[in-house]
Amino acid sequence: MNLPRICRRSVRRPLLLLLLCLSWGAARAEEQLQSPNKQLTLRVDLAADGVPTYRLSYKGKPVLNASRLGLELQGTPSLTNGFVQTSAERKSIDESWNPVLGEVKTIRNHYNELALTLTQPATKRVLRVRFRLFDDGLGFRYEFPRQPELAYFVVKEEKTQFALNGDHKAFWLPGDYDTQEYETVTSNLSQVRGLMKAAITGNASQHPFSPTGLQTPLMLKRPDGVYLNIHEAALVDYSCLSLELDDKTFALNAHLTPDAQGNKGNLQTPCQSPWRTVIVSDKAADILESKLVLNLNEPSKIKDTSWIKPTKYVGVWWEMITGKSSWSYTNQENIKLDSIDYAKVKPNGTHGATTAHVKEYIDFAALHKLDAVLVEGWNTGWEDWFGKHKEYVFDFVTPYPDFDIEELNRYAHGKGIKLIMHHETSGSTRNYERHLEAAFQLMNKHGYDAVKTGYVGDVLPLGEYHYSQWLINHYNYVLEKAAEHHIMVNGHEAVRPTGLSRTYPNLIGNEAARGTEFQAFGGSNPDHCTILPFTRLIGGPMDYTPGIFEMDVSKYNPNNKSHVNSTLAQQLSLYVTMYSPLQMAADLPETYNKFLDAFQFIEDVPVDWDDTHVLEAEPGDYLTIARKGKGSANWFIGSTCDENGRTSSIKLDFLKPGKKYEATIYADGPGAHYAKNPQAYAIRKLTVTSKTKLSQLCAPGGGYAISVVAK
Amino acid sequence: MNLPRICRRSVRRPLLLLLLCLSWGAARAEEQLQSPNKQLTLRVDLAADGVPTYRLSYKGKPVLNASRLGLELQGTPSLTNGFVQTSAERKSIDESWNPVLGEVKTIRNHYNELALTLTQPATKRVLRVRFRLFDDGLGFRYEFPRQPELAYFVVKEEKTQFALNGDHKAFWLPGDYDTQEYETVTSNLSQVRGLMKAAITGNASQHPFSPTGLQTPLMLKRPDGVYLNIHEAALVDYSCLSLELDDKTFALNAHLTPDAQGNKGNLQTPCQSPWRTVIVSDKAADILESKLVLNLNEPSKIKDTSWIKPTKYVGVWWEMITGKSSWSYTNQENIKLDSIDYAKVKPNGTHGATTAHVKEYIDFAALHKLDAVLVEGWNTGWEDWFGKHKEYVFDFVTPYPDFDIEELNRYAHGKGIKLIMHHETSGSTRNYERHLEAAFQLMNKHGYDAVKTGYVGDVLPLGEYHYSQWLINHYNYVLEKAAEHHIMVNGHEAVRPTGLSRTYPNLIGNEAARGTEFQAFGGSNPDHCTILPFTRLIGGPMDYTPGIFEMDVSKYNPNNKSHVNSTLAQQLSLYVTMYSPLQMAADLPETYNKFLDAFQFIEDVPVDWDDTHVLEAEPGDYLTIARKGKGSANWFIGSTCDENGRTSSIKLDFLKPGKKYEATIYADGPGAHYAKNPQAYAIRKLTVTSKTKLSQLCAPGGGYAISVVAK
Repeated sequence: MNLPRICRRSVRRPLLLLLLCLSWGAARAEEQLQSPNKQLTLRVDLAADGVPTYRLSYKGKPVLNASRLGLELQGTPSLTNGFVQTSAERKSIDESWNPVLGEVKTIRNHYNELALTLTQPATKRVLRVRFRLFDDGLGFRYEFPRQPELAYFVVKEEKTQFALNGDHKAFWLPGDYDTQEYETVTSNLSQVRGLMKAAITGNASQHPFSPTGLQTPLMLKRPDGVYLNIHEAALVDYSCLSLELDDKTFALNAHLTPDAQGNKGNLQTPCQSPWRTVIVSDKAADILESKLVLNLNEPSKIKDTSWIKPTKYVGVWWEMITGKSSWSYTNQENIKLDSIDYAKVKPNGTHGATTAHVKEYIDFAALHKLDAVLVEGWNTGWEDWFGKHKEYVFDFVTPYPDFDIEELNRYAHGKGIKLIMHHETSGSTRNYERHLEAAFQLMNKHGYDAVKTGYVGDVLPLGEYHYSQWLINHYNYVLEKAAEHHIMVNGHEAVRPTGLSRTYPNLIGNEAARGTEFQAFGGSNPDHCTILPFTRLIGGPMDYTPGIFEMDVSKYNPNNKSHVNSTLAQQLSLYVTMYSPLQMAADLPETYNKFLDAFQFIEDVPVDWDDTHVLEAEPGDYLTIARKGKGSANWFIGSTCDENGRTSSIKLDFLKPGKKYEATIYADGPGAHYAKNPQAYAIRKLTVTSKTKLSQLCAPGGGYAISVVAK
Repeated sequence: MNLPRICRRSVRRPLLLLLLCLSWGAARAEEQLQSPNKQLTLRVDLAADGVPTYRLSYKGKPVLNASRLGLELQGTPSLTNGFVQTSAERKSIDESWNPVLGEVKTIRNHYNELALTLTQPATKRVLRVRFRLFDDGLGFRYEFPRQPELAYFVVKEEKTQFALNGDHKAFWLPGDYDTQEYETVTSNLSQVRGLMKAAITGNASQHPFSPTGLQTPLMLKRPDGVYLNIHEAALVDYSCLSLELDDKTFALNAHLTPDAQGNKGNLQTPCQSPWRTVIVSDKAADILESKLVLNLNEPSKIKDTSWIKPTKYVGVWWEMITGKSSWSYTNQENIKLDSIDYAKVKPNGTHGATTAHVKEYIDFAALHKLDAVLVEGWNTGWEDWFGKHKEYVFDFVTPYPDFDIEELNRYAHGKGIKLIMHHETSGSTRNYERHLEAAFQLMNKHGYDAVKTGYVGDVLPLGEYHYSQWLINHYNYVLEKAAEHHIMVNGHEAVRPTGLSRTYPNLIGNEAARGTEFQAFGGSNPDHCTILPFTRLIGGPMDYTPGIFEMDVSKYNPNNKSHVNSTLAQQLSLYVTMYSPLQMAADLPETYNKFLDAFQFIEDVPVDWDDTHVLEAEPGDYLTIARKGKGSANWFIGSTCDENGRTSSIKLDFLKPGKKYEATIYADGPGAHYAKNPQAYAIRKLTVTSKTKLSQLCAPGGGYAISVVAK
């Protein structure tokens, strides 16, 4: 046996020599792991300098080159090199579980696992890297076992790499510590730098960090047709992951969100990072059907989930977004909650959340068998709530004088409707936490079972970001406190989800992307909703608030010239393509009343499902999804496409063989076009079976929706 | 009339000309204000460039030269120049009020006031400066009225000056954003820079900001014997003031504590700064007797104050400070509150707060008619509570297994004793706020009526400081929540007080200086307690924790070689000289039991007073104070001196004429010396009247205490 050179040199310390040689031997370890179907292969290596790397191949083709693992720490040697492998544990899991609310009734959790324990002899510290290889991708995380030499530590940067092996096509957002409300840019990775400046559009709070910084979920397509999706799962007590693209090598390097000191996490062993996830397939549909992110989250911490309900709602919201009415009750500027007497201030006459007006929404919801009505602008403080870095901005318990909270809940409950609470925090998180208990008690008292939270604007204290560990802990704290009060949470402007709704099923929605509101702020790209399911929705449901039937925003507010870049039929399709157990019918009842035949689809479509099939999918171009209602024999199909329009061709072979169904097709009408003629739609009915093939023209920026009702 | 040049030049715009000339005229305004006794004269000037300055003279001698006023703002023109005076309102107040707890029964609030409204024509903004001139000094503050051009603003720096007119002797602490636990340095101002480095001794959290930065209260003595004391009053929703010495001109410039962004305050009009205070007298005793800081605070916000009680207490504390016992129940390192099972961890056998041991303290307190027993280390989490920047460090509700909270409160209440709660936050303020309600409910449930809070270590989130606006708001939030629960607060490591105990009488104590604990951490200077009443105590009572009878700390812990630099008699004197309605008898019952004749003074001395006379005073050298117990005919006298020793000579002419009293004198015994022979004391009794003159030798680092009991 030829000893490595270091062993030959060392003659005076035989024990150390032995140890070093053993270490050396171990340092050259290579481990392999295959997915259950053997299509994915993971290889983990320790290079000669004890640097751990991993590689991933799919169907024999490398998809990730040797990619570094480890973390740089603050004030102590880093966990990036000098490792020897001290154990490799393997196991296989094949189990299934039922989500409280979801796209399918049962989720299979099937993976092969490799847990590598890496020891750094120079510091006597141990790092474990746990890999789980599923048929649909890879998850891995760092685990920091309890150990004498590593108790409390500060992360300077996580050094995880995803070393792509080419200039892939990417569906990307600018990396930012505060917002994901950007238009997705579709470009090759080599083009990111040149497109970054234009991609960074204005937002209420934003902090882009690099000309090649990217957000997750990052959707990629290789020239050979293999799709990759990179994200994280189970973001708990850690800072949010972004990616720093090296546009020479096409490696993506982890970039965590810093705190006010520029540090990237305060940790205490035993602990672990979130899972880093890579979903892989040569079929785009598989990316959408992947449950990898959910599977990597912990099972529900909430035992009794009977109070968690799928919810379809209307709300006093779009009229404020468009500028037709106002959140605030007065136009007074510069108010203080502890001294303003609203009885003495002149109302502005444009306040949306009045008792009478909310009753109209309640009536509409009851008539159309919806579940709830969201009311924004119900509480005092909206006069100057934004952009002032004002700490005591809302108290979350005091209604405006023209909003009768008791009467409205009585009225709503009498019609089987719930009101949805709204807690805009304005980023003033300490203020929110101080009022949280009283605010939730008020909700319990009046029978609210869901809250929409908002974090518009910079986070207080300044220096922390929407995605820093401090805020991650805040969002989870709110989730836990809400669960104690049996309250469902729909978090807007909070961090993008990472499958946490498995662990906290009361997290029924998140925004964390460019939602429908931007259609009233200048419009979104017509292909927007053909991308979101491949990016933002990989982490969990989005409260996208579809259902806009009046695309000309100036009809509501003559001063707002924005246009909703979608056809009416496409708006219907989104109830299927954009999975969420919380779905809004976002337009105004007065508009819906003009299109009640089309609204019928929104009335009929469920928001919780037993089964899902992705029938057609190409990010940025189109997608068609069929879903079976929870506990129902009926199916619902949605198809949406980009600005080019197309013909969708689907088979209904997922229907029960031999059974007849009545299909109602809500399609783009003749001449429909997202910009020129968005309201042209046509509804037709036909009988279908599992043998039916359908071919349906989708207008530019259009789509269709179908209800398939068992006869 | 000769027009100013600007008026002569301007010929085309007569209206503007007129306005400018009027402004010019106004800009040269001079206003004078005198104190009620006419000994203090304030002059406020607007220079030609509209820069406001003020000057102060005492008995005809200037004590502050022309000193600038104003604030530099962030992102908007500053409020420092370009002003014209648009109004000057004057009034005189002579009223009195009774503090809930205090040094005197009734406090006279007597001042002449000048409120100058300054308008900045270029920005259409208004700043008001309100001056109150008392016989004992000056207070002034900035007021920012509600106005269209100034709603929300960020303070970059307050530009207030205190332009001293010479190289005065100063009793100073290094300016620091996090701590005041430094030894006072006595030097001329010109020596500050040279002495700064040595003055900055280590602390658990510290952030000195400048080689000439100083803290308030800053005590000064001029060569002509005039004393000045500079501080602030009513620090609410603003950052804490320090002073930046210009050691060429001897001007002191305001230096506010920054936030994580380096900004110094987020304000919303209408609002105001705290009062900036300058107490002036040629008698040191007057500085101690001044109630200026209290008078400048708002009256009590608490209506029913019947639950606020003066409190004398012992506590499970000094034994941990000395290292004799431990706060923690185990020696386990790296614990997590949500997973540790104390039943499975080996106790360390040194835990102080055990049920049996606390009962010994309760027995002692009951036997000696004290009010309460403080227990530190009662709750889980102490194993690694400090220096880890650990957020979830305590839950404030879970006792260690060997601390029976229910039984101990039952036992204590049965003997007329209260337990004092302890909430160490470790600087993790969000964690404390999250648990505050439950913690206070636990206190209410078990009958605790007071809490000692602690903020040892860096503040979380990092970037904020103990004295930044974010924390100031936290401390006041805790005070308000405590008041709602009828809980008294004794805040340690919080910001130094500014007379807020008038507004929140439940603020019964603060540390915010180098307390007795430092006598076990290496010792404090023997003159320490001759200075504190002139510095730290100007803002409010200090929980100094006097009463150490065993000066050799190694008697408790052989590994601790620290020595308490004080005689036993001096320790007794501190109960009078260091005013506090909350006074600890800090030593161990086992020690007190060896000196019960001396302990009698602690047993007898009240902590709330009807009257106070400062009989002798010179900062850094000595002070002698006599106080009359609240609702009692008895007087108590304390005298303390520096390392040189002295003979104190006092007249008892404050006693009721013709009445006889029994005086018990607790004095330094023969050969007593703070270092060499600290426990030598002698007790003698004699009959005294208002005609009695006493002459008493005080040992180096010694003093005496006298109880004067009406016969």
